[in-house]
Amino acid sequence: MSMTTAQRNGVNVEALFGALDAVRAQPEAAKFQFRASNEWISGTHSRSRIHGFFGLGAEQTHRDPHEYDADHPEQLVGTDSGPSPVEFLLHALAACITAGIGNIAAARGIDLTRVHSTVTGDVDLVGLLGLDDSVRNGYQAIDVSLTIEGDAGADELRAVVERSVARSAVYDLLTNGTSVQVRVEVG
Amino acid sequence: MSMTTAQRNGVNVEALFGALDAVRAQPEAAKFQFRASNEWISGTHSRSRIHGFFGLGAEQTHRDPHEYDADHPEQLVGTDSGPSPVEFLLHALAACITAGIGNIAAARGIDLTRVHSTVTGDVDLVGLLGLDDSVRNGYQAIDVSLTIEGDAGADELRAVVERSVARSAVYDLLTNGTSVQVRVEVG
Repeated sequence: MSMTTAQRNGVNVEALFGALDAVRAQPEAAKFQFRASNEWISGTHSRSRIHGFFGLGAEQTHRDPHEYDADHPEQLVGTDSGPSPVEFLLHALAACITAGIGNIAAARGIDLTRVHSTVTGDVDLVGLLGLDDSVRNGYQAIDVSLTIEGDAGADELRAVVERSVARSAVYDLLTNGTSVQVRVEVG
Repeated sequence: MSMTTAQRNGVNVEALFGALDAVRAQPEAAKFQFRASNEWISGTHSRSRIHGFFGLGAEQTHRDPHEYDADHPEQLVGTDSGPSPVEFLLHALAACITAGIGNIAAARGIDLTRVHSTVTGDVDLVGLLGLDDSVRNGYQAIDVSLTIEGDAGADELRAVVERSVARSAVYDLLTNGTSVQVRVEVG
């Protein structure tokens, strides 16, 4: 990664502030739609493809399309052809908080040396398996244990993490929920 | 995939019902903990590792460890080294509903020929960017558009999807939210 004076933590700070100014001037540019398409393979095994999205007022694509397999583990009668869907959720949460930390630290002039997190989710499958209706299907709680290192005081580094959590899209969705509409077509 | 009489849709139905009986007899076996660990790489780019989990009363591992990169797209001043965290969330939702469909159809004696879904999430980034506190960080809404084909009537196939959604861990988490605790250690 080439480091120019405008770069900190691998973030082009000038471009970051430029993007904020551009959105301030033209708020419509900030309306994004992200997408994944998924194809069933067999049993609990499926594969998603992530490539196109909408943003900055136009259709966009990632540089490369990405494909991810998900499955249930053998312990849950799957074929373990990939992590389970609920594990991808933990990855999404960790990655979202960490991306925000990178940006916020750069904007505040802090050089980071390490950000590491372990995210765990506890679930009692008697709910999901339909054996006890009083138990929810999803995680009863999620725990994020995060370590941050950089050239700032402990309070400043903690404040970066707090700000990132307060602005995290995935944290917001997992703590507050959102509306999900499911439309079914029979082929 | 070898198909025995006990297999339908790639699901070992006998083993599936056996697992349900085992959990009925010993509900402690249904307490699972899933995990992801994440390491910051640069800017908004990080990498998660998914391997071990707890379930059936003991430490378990997936057959192979899995690693996934996440990043912000270039349109959001990232380096596009992987999908964004909120896109992994859509993958998790699609994969969770689809896995349930595979199991439920098999349990009901329905042979599926196709399950395809496209999941979209709309987000207004003026929230996440801190430009408008009245706008949330996460998706304002998620839309799942699912096509199902198999050897049953339209009503039966729709009922399989409805049951899967009603028992989906990720759908539950995204619609109802959960408790997320963040603990920070300064290295």
